Amino acid sequence: MGTHSEGIDINQVHITVDMTDRTIEETPVPAGYEYLSGRGLISKTLLDEVDPTCHPLSPANPLIFAPGMFAGTYLSSCNRLSAGAKSPLTGGIKESNSGGVAAFMLGKLGIRALKLTGASGDTDKLAGLRISKEGVSFEDLTELKGKGTYETTALLRKRFGEKTCIISIGSAGEMLMAAACIGVTDMEGEPCRNLGRGGLGAVMGSKGLKAIIIDDTGTEPLSKHSGEAKTIIKEFAKMLREHPVTGEMFPKFGTAMTLLNVNGLGGLPTRNFTSGRYEKAEEIGGPRLYEIITERGGMPAHACMPGCVIRCSNKYSDKAGRHMVGSIDFETICLMGSNLDLSDYDQIAELNLRCNDIGIDTIETGVALGVLCEAGALRFGDFEGILSAVEAVGKGEPLGRLLGAGAAACGKAYGLTRVPVVKNQGMAAYDPRVVKGMGVTYAMSPMGADHTAGNAITLEAEHTDPEGKVPLVRGLHVNTVVYDSLGVCIFTGRVMNSNPHFLERMLKALWGWEITIEELRHMAEEALNRELEFNRRAGFTSAHDRLPGFMYTEKLPPSGMTYDIPVDETEKVYDF
Amino acid sequence: MGTHSEGIDINQVHITVDMTDRTIEETPVPAGYEYLSGRGLISKTLLDEVDPTCHPLSPANPLIFAPGMFAGTYLSSCNRLSAGAKSPLTGGIKESNSGGVAAFMLGKLGIRALKLTGASGDTDKLAGLRISKEGVSFEDLTELKGKGTYETTALLRKRFGEKTCIISIGSAGEMLMAAACIGVTDMEGEPCRNLGRGGLGAVMGSKGLKAIIIDDTGTEPLSKHSGEAKTIIKEFAKMLREHPVTGEMFPKFGTAMTLLNVNGLGGLPTRNFTSGRYEKAEEIGGPRLYEIITERGGMPAHACMPGCVIRCSNKYSDKAGRHMVGSIDFETICLMGSNLDLSDYDQIAELNLRCNDIGIDTIETGVALGVLCEAGALRFGDFEGILSAVEAVGKGEPLGRLLGAGAAACGKAYGLTRVPVVKNQGMAAYDPRVVKGMGVTYAMSPMGADHTAGNAITLEAEHTDPEGKVPLVRGLHVNTVVYDSLGVCIFTGRVMNSNPHFLERMLKALWGWEITIEELRHMAEEALNRELEFNRRAGFTSAHDRLPGFMYTEKLPPSGMTYDIPVDETEKVYDF
Repeated sequence: MGTHSEGIDINQVHITVDMTDRTIEETPVPAGYEYLSGRGLISKTLLDEVDPTCHPLSPANPLIFAPGMFAGTYLSSCNRLSAGAKSPLTGGIKESNSGGVAAFMLGKLGIRALKLTGASGDTDKLAGLRISKEGVSFEDLTELKGKGTYETTALLRKRFGEKTCIISIGSAGEMLMAAACIGVTDMEGEPCRNLGRGGLGAVMGSKGLKAIIIDDTGTEPLSKHSGEAKTIIKEFAKMLREHPVTGEMFPKFGTAMTLLNVNGLGGLPTRNFTSGRYEKAEEIGGPRLYEIITERGGMPAHACMPGCVIRCSNKYSDKAGRHMVGSIDFETICLMGSNLDLSDYDQIAELNLRCNDIGIDTIETGVALGVLCEAGALRFGDFEGILSAVEAVGKGEPLGRLLGAGAAACGKAYGLTRVPVVKNQGMAAYDPRVVKGMGVTYAMSPMGADHTAGNAITLEAEHTDPEGKVPLVRGLHVNTVVYDSLGVCIFTGRVMNSNPHFLERMLKALWGWEITIEELRHMAEEALNRELEFNRRAGFTSAHDRLPGFMYTEKLPPSGMTYDIPVDETEKVYDF
Repeated sequence: MGTHSEGIDINQVHITVDMTDRTIEETPVPAGYEYLSGRGLISKTLLDEVDPTCHPLSPANPLIFAPGMFAGTYLSSCNRLSAGAKSPLTGGIKESNSGGVAAFMLGKLGIRALKLTGASGDTDKLAGLRISKEGVSFEDLTELKGKGTYETTALLRKRFGEKTCIISIGSAGEMLMAAACIGVTDMEGEPCRNLGRGGLGAVMGSKGLKAIIIDDTGTEPLSKHSGEAKTIIKEFAKMLREHPVTGEMFPKFGTAMTLLNVNGLGGLPTRNFTSGRYEKAEEIGGPRLYEIITERGGMPAHACMPGCVIRCSNKYSDKAGRHMVGSIDFETICLMGSNLDLSDYDQIAELNLRCNDIGIDTIETGVALGVLCEAGALRFGDFEGILSAVEAVGKGEPLGRLLGAGAAACGKAYGLTRVPVVKNQGMAAYDPRVVKGMGVTYAMSPMGADHTAGNAITLEAEHTDPEGKVPLVRGLHVNTVVYDSLGVCIFTGRVMNSNPHFLERMLKALWGWEITIEELRHMAEEALNRELEFNRRAGFTSAHDRLPGFMYTEKLPPSGMTYDIPVDETEKVYDF
């Protein structure tokens, strides 16, 4: 592996904030962590420092924020923020990542890791952390108790500056719900980029922390003084712009472009995964979304983080043309649309906004709502009933507590056998009986049923064919960990995969590393092994590496398919 | 091991009822099952025939009823009925056993195992099974939908005969709740003997089965023609009567006699296990119960099954002297009393009756209610609020669904770290920080936190001393499996342990076996190993063999003790 001696000399730090005694420690990057950022850093910290059997909401579980190696540069789509902890939802390791401006700012501030340990213990109060060039300080945010992320963000930006980035939790996180997420502001200051999955918002809530305010005043992009870095940034942006998917499809239809394809395959979760095709799919497809947004003067193409040319994000306006919520994405459209038999974009947008504000994961909540509909506690297609269940989350009412605990909890409470979860985490918007590669990802990922762990819909292969999927998915998982560990958006994969040397060149230009893509992939395998080991110690076995039983036997209409990649073949995905 | 050639020749059968296609198969005791009954039989059936990763509420999970070897005789306290399945509560193996008249009748009918497989699939209907000398038949019980066990029992006894035994579920079982139990009638026809723990009522509900009606008309006690058996029955009854605990304490104070002792030790769960001593313990102690029952003309000493001379059971009357509920037992008194800060016996009796009728386990429900009180969803001491939460179970309202899903589910929904469960099952009425041996049982039993798996309060040792407990608890667990596998009540232990040859003599007299107590213990170890293996395959590891984290660190007032038997020592309990 290369050395640290060449390139630009930028010192980066790890910051540890002990929430129990309110101490703040800033150290240079510790030995063993030189080459680690993002997801790779998180897995090492958790495996080395955390008791995997601890209660996820106890002070023993840290919450780690880690931008990637390119954070603070304008390299397109490479400013994602990772967060991680033991998951209150799955009980296993969890890394979740999001766009927004947080990682860009943290990178510029030279912060490679922000680790929160302990817990305030004073449940009457709420704390904030303010991070700037001057360092980290505690703020009293008790007055924000129970407030949604939108009001929280507005108040904090008013108090600390309209250009600050706000990382915050809503009432769901404060109430320690296992489906609670963490909101991150985008370039317009909307708290709509979510560290969504696995209940990290509850971990933040358990520490008595309402928000982190990041102020990057007086900092400069990391790549400012490197001509080579600037060249690469331009080249990479050009390649992304020229690719038909990242340059044309994503900016026009956003992630919603996937919907009609998946529906066509017959793998679009509909009415709690009882069908793979939604009869009203056109009404919630990518073209319809583009039409509504452009008609109303919203933004169909929007960059969720500085420098991103893919701009898969959007800003949705209401009927009166006023900004309503951004961004409406495929997973939400499906799981709160076809999965609940809701086909009105305004209704989906309303649910999306309420989830963002309350601070719960739209994927987990969409799956959980589907389970409650099948159980008879709600009704498919009944928008008002479904909305009031979401509002019950914010109010902490019993039905909301159940919903906030996630799909598996809802399934257990209602005695349902058809619960689309793995490791207690709800599935994303691809039925694995048809998108077979996604079944491998859902079943095997240490993260639970998480499509982003190995987004098999991007495979250029016949999705419905069980043959030969496992090696392809293995490659996806490894590449994904490379990206997640560097803060690179997986949507760059189409371009990055065929030009892996960009990563090598950029790491050399920025950090002086002589590192090859093979070495990066090897490090990714090591990171995956750390995640798997954490889960083993937490009590996971191969018995948990299973799709829910009904997916092996119940034929999904209209294709009539079951998940038919054999268990022993599926289990080979991590044989590297 | 002895042969089957001596003694009385009574043919016994295994009956398998396929609920899917309504076939009934009766076979002689299969090869390999000759010496198995009760809990031992259940573990073999489940390990041999069931996919441990199946959904507990799916047709793949059978429900097995198995009386013990002495069922159908008048041997005191030896007519317990075991039931078993994969548990909807823990996800592991589950055997639960109860008194009542079912095992006595099944024994007389020559039925060693009743196995229900599949599921009716027709959720609009409810079935019943009628068992008599003529065989097994299906009955349509759809009209009983949603009815409590008391009304169900009354209607069925009216229809099928006032002397029939009724095994039934309430609405909780029909609604597939993980805390649902199965009610069994006692000698007075009250459905108050419960197959309580682990959600077996939900498994019964998942099969579309509301009740089993047993009619023993025309049968005779198994021991009728054996002079030797009759002699042993008399001798054993005499010894039980002459022992101070089984002959004096139990008939007078019932299981409630334990309460003041445990409170004195400082191990009585109080307000969700935040204290080990209840300031109002006298009001819910054994003497007070005896006083109330005798004042009102109830029965302080009552046999829950034919022939039992211990008579630890009771019948509780209301203020007007009318029979109200039987039997009020220690676990319920503590977990619905001190654990909820309720000290009025009439209130505890009312909760007990409602739980029996709705068909939920009073232990699990008491623990869950304590969790909800600590979480702020209910209030300690608020009887009306607590009662309405229990009623919400029967109505299937959201709070009731949560409560019916058990203590761990409630803890998860409310983000609590102080949740007294192991393997998702609520602890019984002994805080393991003080009654250390019970901590070994809770942590290690394949059944989850189940005091009856190794009732360490019966150890004649200093309960608060961590030293030397593990070998003693090991012996308890093995002896318990011997008893559970023969249908013998563990309360006979005090006499049986010092006279193990009674079992040998009785097995010889009844079945012609030349079997030693050492062989029985060896078989019990084999049964335990089967249970552990089932759980391993279901996904359990040593990470699940842990008390909740807070019990290792939080000092229990007033003793200030934590659970301090080291984990690696605790784990040795099954090193046989």
